[in-house]
Amino acid sequence: MKETKLSFTNRTLPIWLESDKASSLTVLSSRVRFARNLAGYPFPTKATANELDEILEMISHAVKKEETLNKFFPDSEPIAIDKITPLQAEFLVERHLISPDFLHRMTKKKDSKSSGSFGRAAFINQDETVSLMINEEDHLRFQVLAAGLNFTDSFRKLNELDDCLESLLRYAYSQQYGFLTACPSNVGTGLRASVMIHLPGLVLTKEIDKVLRAIWQIGYAVRGLYGEGTETRGYFFQISNTVSLGQSEAEIIEGIEKVTNQLISHEEKAREYLSKNMKSEIEDKVFRAHALLNSARLITSEEALNLLATVRLGVAMKIITNITLTALNKIMFLLKPANLQVFYNQEMSPHERDEKRAALIRQILTETSQLPI
Amino acid sequence: MKETKLSFTNRTLPIWLESDKASSLTVLSSRVRFARNLAGYPFPTKATANELDEILEMISHAVKKEETLNKFFPDSEPIAIDKITPLQAEFLVERHLISPDFLHRMTKKKDSKSSGSFGRAAFINQDETVSLMINEEDHLRFQVLAAGLNFTDSFRKLNELDDCLESLLRYAYSQQYGFLTACPSNVGTGLRASVMIHLPGLVLTKEIDKVLRAIWQIGYAVRGLYGEGTETRGYFFQISNTVSLGQSEAEIIEGIEKVTNQLISHEEKAREYLSKNMKSEIEDKVFRAHALLNSARLITSEEALNLLATVRLGVAMKIITNITLTALNKIMFLLKPANLQVFYNQEMSPHERDEKRAALIRQILTETSQLPI
Repeated sequence: MKETKLSFTNRTLPIWLESDKASSLTVLSSRVRFARNLAGYPFPTKATANELDEILEMISHAVKKEETLNKFFPDSEPIAIDKITPLQAEFLVERHLISPDFLHRMTKKKDSKSSGSFGRAAFINQDETVSLMINEEDHLRFQVLAAGLNFTDSFRKLNELDDCLESLLRYAYSQQYGFLTACPSNVGTGLRASVMIHLPGLVLTKEIDKVLRAIWQIGYAVRGLYGEGTETRGYFFQISNTVSLGQSEAEIIEGIEKVTNQLISHEEKAREYLSKNMKSEIEDKVFRAHALLNSARLITSEEALNLLATVRLGVAMKIITNITLTALNKIMFLLKPANLQVFYNQEMSPHERDEKRAALIRQILTETSQLPI
Repeated sequence: MKETKLSFTNRTLPIWLESDKASSLTVLSSRVRFARNLAGYPFPTKATANELDEILEMISHAVKKEETLNKFFPDSEPIAIDKITPLQAEFLVERHLISPDFLHRMTKKKDSKSSGSFGRAAFINQDETVSLMINEEDHLRFQVLAAGLNFTDSFRKLNELDDCLESLLRYAYSQQYGFLTACPSNVGTGLRASVMIHLPGLVLTKEIDKVLRAIWQIGYAVRGLYGEGTETRGYFFQISNTVSLGQSEAEIIEGIEKVTNQLISHEEKAREYLSKNMKSEIEDKVFRAHALLNSARLITSEEALNLLATVRLGVAMKIITNITLTALNKIMFLLKPANLQVFYNQEMSPHERDEKRAALIRQILTETSQLPI
């Protein structure tokens, strides 16, 4: 297989997370995405391989032709899922640029026993803030990512992309329902807004279930690091709106901002409680986690993520002061199996990964601890 | 209760373990003890409180009167078990100067419902190498402790004590069987010789069961840190002869020395195997254990002992080079609940102990790491 080059794989961290100012300790990132479909074609699960190819061709053509879109995605061709290596594909999932589902969705080719990811491809911009998946659950899924709690710029950018695409493509749209999508939960605005939020305080004070239940009751979904169907790890939760019908786009954005601010406030209160009532227990937990990350010679991605989450809490609570937020974010991405292998530019066995991961984490922690505070 | 002063409690470590030269990384200590009984009295379990008092009186008198014995134990009175605090008693057990059984053995006083540790007392010398229990399982149990594998001096000293006691007391002795004791396993020489040995290599290579079974088959018992009925902890094993009849004293000592040397040799081979075949796993384990001891803010004695045992292996395998053997031994004693409280001269709740223990361990490790190697 001729390897497709991914020009941004040589960066240890997505550009948008590189600045300490841009990101926050509690809200890691905000994300907005639109689901859109082309009129006159079946949804991807019902489409034939030939139809998927046609859809891909139409959208790619639009991206190349339209000036603003072409500025977003200067690479002339999208990344075809069946043209990249499994490692590259996993890398894109770990960076939250494509969905896990996008990788594993297979179609049977008409009049043939062969099946594959026909017609599936993605445009990704250079700074990894914008990506556009073709033929995922819908014909078009495009998203804008931002560090911290920040929907203003990203939602403006998302609308701009939407306008450009709409100027060249005919969307499936109903006067009564709005944009039509494969899953009813996306019908209407097709907008999903979500945040990745770190809630260790609520977990450790055992208030998390109560708080998340309340969030869920007012119409928000809670998921793990990689979205639907994934487990929560390292105290990270993804919160998103569940309904996109019956609310305006602005109302959806305002709603998630409000809920996120409430969560931040609950989390801060929980941390204050820990500071006052469980000081030595929390310090013990934080210093141990830091010590293990600083000393392990073999470490799995799961253990590293859990320890890192505790250290992140320690930094937020000022128990640890010599680690930058950038270092925490860098470790958070580099500990992932595909990111680690892409960083070292070699395929590794699980044992080799555990060894290299431990060494790399120690190196980043040593570098960050030598920086002036 | 008027507190009996224990003059040696202000030492963090028994004198005999204070020198790096005297002790060894694999064999922590050697111990020899004689079991003896006075003719004309029932064994302690069958004796009345009055008889136990008489036995105590006779033995104490002999110790005070005999010049050499008096030199060993210059304190005129033995430490009466019912005259010291529970904390002091626990301290003596942790230092291996009295047996756990000695503390908990209770006698009912004749014509009374009251029961207690009547007539039970111990002489302990200043450097904690020699102790003499009165009315434990036998009327007399006296022992000599030494650092490392070293029976020569201690066995000479034990015999000297025995000769002195015999010059003033009439032992229960049979021409056919030798010295008579409460438990048949001690009949004959009444000699038990044991070593406390550290076998992490054999545990980690999973060879320990095979090796210990072989030891057991040729007549040696394997026990935990505090003797009979105690669990093995932190890879420490106590090996001792099981039979004292039908072998001369010299044969018993030679036997345990030989078995110990074989164990040392097996352990060294296991460590070589680990070095060659599981290098990163062992380094990971050692560095993590060291990091946790260096960073915990709350630690139980059990966790601390297990981590310390792994660090001890790391020092033996030269993975860690900036910790002295004395520091390892010091931590090993100070982590124990009673030793810790005696060191700080205050009674503490379990939570306070966990906090103080963690702080003290960090302090000792910091001090040792600043010493020139």
